[in-house]
Amino acid sequence: MPLAERKLIDRIRRLVPPGTGPLIRGIGDDSAVLRVSSGYELLVTTDLYIEDVHFRTQWHPPQSVGHRCLARGLSDIAAMGGEPVACFLSLGLPARLPQAWVDGFLHGFTRLARPFKVQLAGGDVSSARNITADIMVIGQAPAGKAVLRSGAKAGDRIYVTGELGGSAAVLERLYDRKRVRPSGSSRHFYPQPRIEVGRRLSRQRLATAMIDLSDGLSVDLNHICNESRVAATIREDAIPVAPGAGLKHALHGGEDYELLFTASAKAKVPAEIAGVQVTEIGVIGRQKDYRAAIQILNENGRTQALLPKGWQHFARR
Amino acid sequence: MPLAERKLIDRIRRLVPPGTGPLIRGIGDDSAVLRVSSGYELLVTTDLYIEDVHFRTQWHPPQSVGHRCLARGLSDIAAMGGEPVACFLSLGLPARLPQAWVDGFLHGFTRLARPFKVQLAGGDVSSARNITADIMVIGQAPAGKAVLRSGAKAGDRIYVTGELGGSAAVLERLYDRKRVRPSGSSRHFYPQPRIEVGRRLSRQRLATAMIDLSDGLSVDLNHICNESRVAATIREDAIPVAPGAGLKHALHGGEDYELLFTASAKAKVPAEIAGVQVTEIGVIGRQKDYRAAIQILNENGRTQALLPKGWQHFARR
Repeated sequence: MPLAERKLIDRIRRLVPPGTGPLIRGIGDDSAVLRVSSGYELLVTTDLYIEDVHFRTQWHPPQSVGHRCLARGLSDIAAMGGEPVACFLSLGLPARLPQAWVDGFLHGFTRLARPFKVQLAGGDVSSARNITADIMVIGQAPAGKAVLRSGAKAGDRIYVTGELGGSAAVLERLYDRKRVRPSGSSRHFYPQPRIEVGRRLSRQRLATAMIDLSDGLSVDLNHICNESRVAATIREDAIPVAPGAGLKHALHGGEDYELLFTASAKAKVPAEIAGVQVTEIGVIGRQKDYRAAIQILNENGRTQALLPKGWQHFARR
Repeated sequence: MPLAERKLIDRIRRLVPPGTGPLIRGIGDDSAVLRVSSGYELLVTTDLYIEDVHFRTQWHPPQSVGHRCLARGLSDIAAMGGEPVACFLSLGLPARLPQAWVDGFLHGFTRLARPFKVQLAGGDVSSARNITADIMVIGQAPAGKAVLRSGAKAGDRIYVTGELGGSAAVLERLYDRKRVRPSGSSRHFYPQPRIEVGRRLSRQRLATAMIDLSDGLSVDLNHICNESRVAATIREDAIPVAPGAGLKHALHGGEDYELLFTASAKAKVPAEIAGVQVTEIGVIGRQKDYRAAIQILNENGRTQALLPKGWQHFARR
């Protein structure tokens, strides 16, 4: 391993406290060693985060890139109703990259990890042509309590947390070369994974199926429909559109990292969970036609098919 | 997610049997769900594998690239004395890459996974400028039995499995533009992770410290010395040099994926474990000077410092 990479590992190691809690052995051996609580199942998720595909250095400050990278993984654990335990970060870095960028990235990363008590337990570093990060998060959930995408049943109600489309609206402004301030409260630059909401939905057995909104409502609801073999109808006027966003952003814009879940019609789903607004937006029906799993009911009482477009619709114009 | 990536995921999914054994839920949800055997600890390792850094498409057939990618991760689990349980693969692929290359890669990958019963349980795909793979392997070891790098004590003997330098000798031929046939039995193109050897060394409590030879003997023995706060003396004439390789390849050449371990002087270490030759090459001493942790005793009875050079010495000429 070249000296620059060894130095980076030493730098990361200093940021990370020695093994505590479930982490028996972290960075510095051939693999990490973790203790799994008895009666728990393990959740594992990996997400690539690549320069010019998922972020641009001229748009996203390094702190935001580090934050978003970890948020992607944490959000997947939230969508299972789990709690994060440890994370692993593989970083491919171009030689031209200033040290200050790497420090900013690590700062954004560890600042998000801290409140969730997620330990950076290992990873790898290498040279690469583009900045390439692969984030792996390990979580846990009590045995049998992880909420899958496949549990939705006809008659279930459909819910989302928070407001949708805010992240895509910002992305559109960036593509249009409009000025955007990467403020700390922006859900595009600093999305907050809904760990506590997911955990409560799982523990109280409220959610029958769940997914996080990373690709966009039309795509992610379609995943639930496919995996559960059901159809869905959502009401246009019920969708909580974020300030500054339009309906198209809320329907097809990704990277909001809110939760989309279904619950039995009889379930008492609170209007707010862990300080986050929860909105009923539709109902699950029987599967009819694979190509049009989702119908949208507009304000004129008309129903039409909602095709899964997703945020790539915005990103790849 | 663009259509090409969705298709690749469907292709991978067809290669993978549905969740069996410890895998409760694999590809197709926000995260994989794994059952951990009670009384076991979890081992987690991640390794980047990047085009033009770790392999070249003009040198390495796609089957070899897929094999080597997984072998890197499995070898880390072997070095802990663990058994692999599941793996996760993140793939960044350039648009120009032919489908046949991806199929070859997946073929080499799954052909190595099968005998070790390692299930591909998830991952991610994305576009990327260079072929970028990140392999994560999850393993398990009975609680307290994982063999760390930090357990070597003064007086312990030092051992290696198999023969060293074979992989670096091939790499040198490739750099020198000499003809190399990527045969199925080549340890450069198709290294065999020493899972069973590592498992027995751990279960029989023979190894006090262990690491896999990925960076080269001089670098990896230095890792054991640093983590165990000891020094080491190895005997030049004891080192098992692979056919076609020289001493410099055996000392500093990486990617042999053999095991390097220490055992008490009293331990009865067999000359062969699970069909693999085991050779005693030296002895652990007290820590003196950080910069020269390793001494090498040559055939003239002279001792000199062995500096950690590693395979980058060959790769980056």
